[in-house]
Amino acid sequence: MTSFNVAIIGATGAVGQEMLKLLEQREFPVKTIRCFASPQSFGKTVLFKGKKIPVEKLSENCFQGIDIALFSAGKKISLAYAPLAVKAGCLVVDNSSAYRMDPKVPLVIPEINSHALENHSGIISSPNCTATVMLMALAPLHRQFKIRRIVMATYQAASGAGQKAMTELQEESRALLENRPYTRTVMPFPYAFNLFPHNAPMTASGYNEEEIKVIEEAHKILEEPNLRIAVTCVRVPVLRAHCEALNVEFENPITAQEAKAILQKSPGVTVLEEWDQNRFPMPLDATGHDHIFVGRIRQDLSNANTLDLWAAGDQLLKGAALNAIQIAETCIEIGSRISRN
Amino acid sequence: MTSFNVAIIGATGAVGQEMLKLLEQREFPVKTIRCFASPQSFGKTVLFKGKKIPVEKLSENCFQGIDIALFSAGKKISLAYAPLAVKAGCLVVDNSSAYRMDPKVPLVIPEINSHALENHSGIISSPNCTATVMLMALAPLHRQFKIRRIVMATYQAASGAGQKAMTELQEESRALLENRPYTRTVMPFPYAFNLFPHNAPMTASGYNEEEIKVIEEAHKILEEPNLRIAVTCVRVPVLRAHCEALNVEFENPITAQEAKAILQKSPGVTVLEEWDQNRFPMPLDATGHDHIFVGRIRQDLSNANTLDLWAAGDQLLKGAALNAIQIAETCIEIGSRISRN
Repeated sequence: MTSFNVAIIGATGAVGQEMLKLLEQREFPVKTIRCFASPQSFGKTVLFKGKKIPVEKLSENCFQGIDIALFSAGKKISLAYAPLAVKAGCLVVDNSSAYRMDPKVPLVIPEINSHALENHSGIISSPNCTATVMLMALAPLHRQFKIRRIVMATYQAASGAGQKAMTELQEESRALLENRPYTRTVMPFPYAFNLFPHNAPMTASGYNEEEIKVIEEAHKILEEPNLRIAVTCVRVPVLRAHCEALNVEFENPITAQEAKAILQKSPGVTVLEEWDQNRFPMPLDATGHDHIFVGRIRQDLSNANTLDLWAAGDQLLKGAALNAIQIAETCIEIGSRISRN
Repeated sequence: MTSFNVAIIGATGAVGQEMLKLLEQREFPVKTIRCFASPQSFGKTVLFKGKKIPVEKLSENCFQGIDIALFSAGKKISLAYAPLAVKAGCLVVDNSSAYRMDPKVPLVIPEINSHALENHSGIISSPNCTATVMLMALAPLHRQFKIRRIVMATYQAASGAGQKAMTELQEESRALLENRPYTRTVMPFPYAFNLFPHNAPMTASGYNEEEIKVIEEAHKILEEPNLRIAVTCVRVPVLRAHCEALNVEFENPITAQEAKAILQKSPGVTVLEEWDQNRFPMPLDATGHDHIFVGRIRQDLSNANTLDLWAAGDQLLKGAALNAIQIAETCIEIGSRISRN
């Protein structure tokens, strides 16, 4: 079997660490692996298959000989280095927002739109984590019943702001419980036992950039540029899985039973509903799991052809690292263009 | 000035404790105060104006001589003892759900429908905390622009399940941070760094009783029995203030500026919006404050005549103790029937 020279850019971050674990667990055909990170990580090592891999510095020529470059080091790094990786012949899978809305770049959730992988110019984007959780729950329903409008409120975990935010949430909580002062360095507002509307930069519309990403990326992935979506993104003091309250109006009549039957058959989705126990997906259910969990599928009481649903997904896995690796796997599977250095 | 013999039923609970503080802070005309609680609190005392008040046992005849009885000891106690209090000549203000939907019982948020206090049969109900936060933000807008439909997702604090739930959230968080096991006794699911759909009993509709309360109580308070409301109630690991993401469709065109101007003039409401700082109401803003905080008032991107809003309110204050005391104050002010023993 063909194997590949793989690079992870952002290997010491929360997503990069999950990527390393997933490449190993999923027996991704890795010939060699190289790990890149920010200057503060130079000299460190990361673990892959029990071996210590040195953390390297990004440079203009560092991508020579690499087949697949998995980027998860933020938008700026992707903007600066992904084109160099493509030039060196890499297939780039980018977890940042840098290229997601570029018409030449496929934006892919393999379970939903793997056909978009057939044509690319070297870069493939993996969507925003919040959009991914929403679309994994809704795309299968849209295919059969056509969604007219989505109103979503999110419950987003610390991991969305990286490993530092996760640590800060824990340390701030510890300090509060011990009546000690704590100085935040990551989040703009108190996070322990508190919550706040997502701090992504605000746009003129009054929706912040996180919310706009959800809307635009859903339009691109579903190929429905006019789908009506309202979204309120909120950071809650949870470590690593996002939840979403979804109110979804369809063009056609749909029952909760029909929706449940569709989702139960959808790849990458687990329906979790124990109505008599009030037992529905929680962040702890999703944490460490590949699937998006969906439950509380019920007829909306306020509108015809409308369902309310509740979803949870591991932000670091299907929301980021897993989806990126699934993109690379699907490219290999369908024989999409990957450099053979 | 006339003063009154006041009783608090549930005086050792989270709401009862706030009631005692508020009666003092607001210089409520208290002639005498008596405090009742569950058997496990007998022998304890509670503080009022620096004096230790013994906790008494509820009995058939305990309400003799009391003018105003503030009930906050749960539905069962209200069902059993409020009629006895009325029989003894008390004005009962009930914080439980026991009588809220009784057509003979006014359900009142004084800023919204104090006119309903003019006719009562001895019991007045204070609404569910989640309904109160929502209605404080929306009733002023409804009055001028007529709401057609509300889609709400909530972020509810531990205090909604009482003092024991607040303590459990802290203790479970502490245990988790210290890698110690913890045995929950209050909440049905892990709460520390986790969240879950509200555990109120499920109804056949797929909406739980908390959600049904919000819908039915809003209908009663606004006197709009057909107002369309969808709601998803969620418990988040926050101590004592509820937040709500509100998507509100109006019959008539309304701008975010118009809504903001109305809310800025609404009694009991504070608009908190610093758009350039992403600074909107948080649980910590509302904690300990009488007002409901509203912000992120923006035009909805998915629907005409629709606004998105974000609200936060102290569940124990305006959501419970404060509203009950405001009801009693308003009764005194308008000369509504109060026993003069």
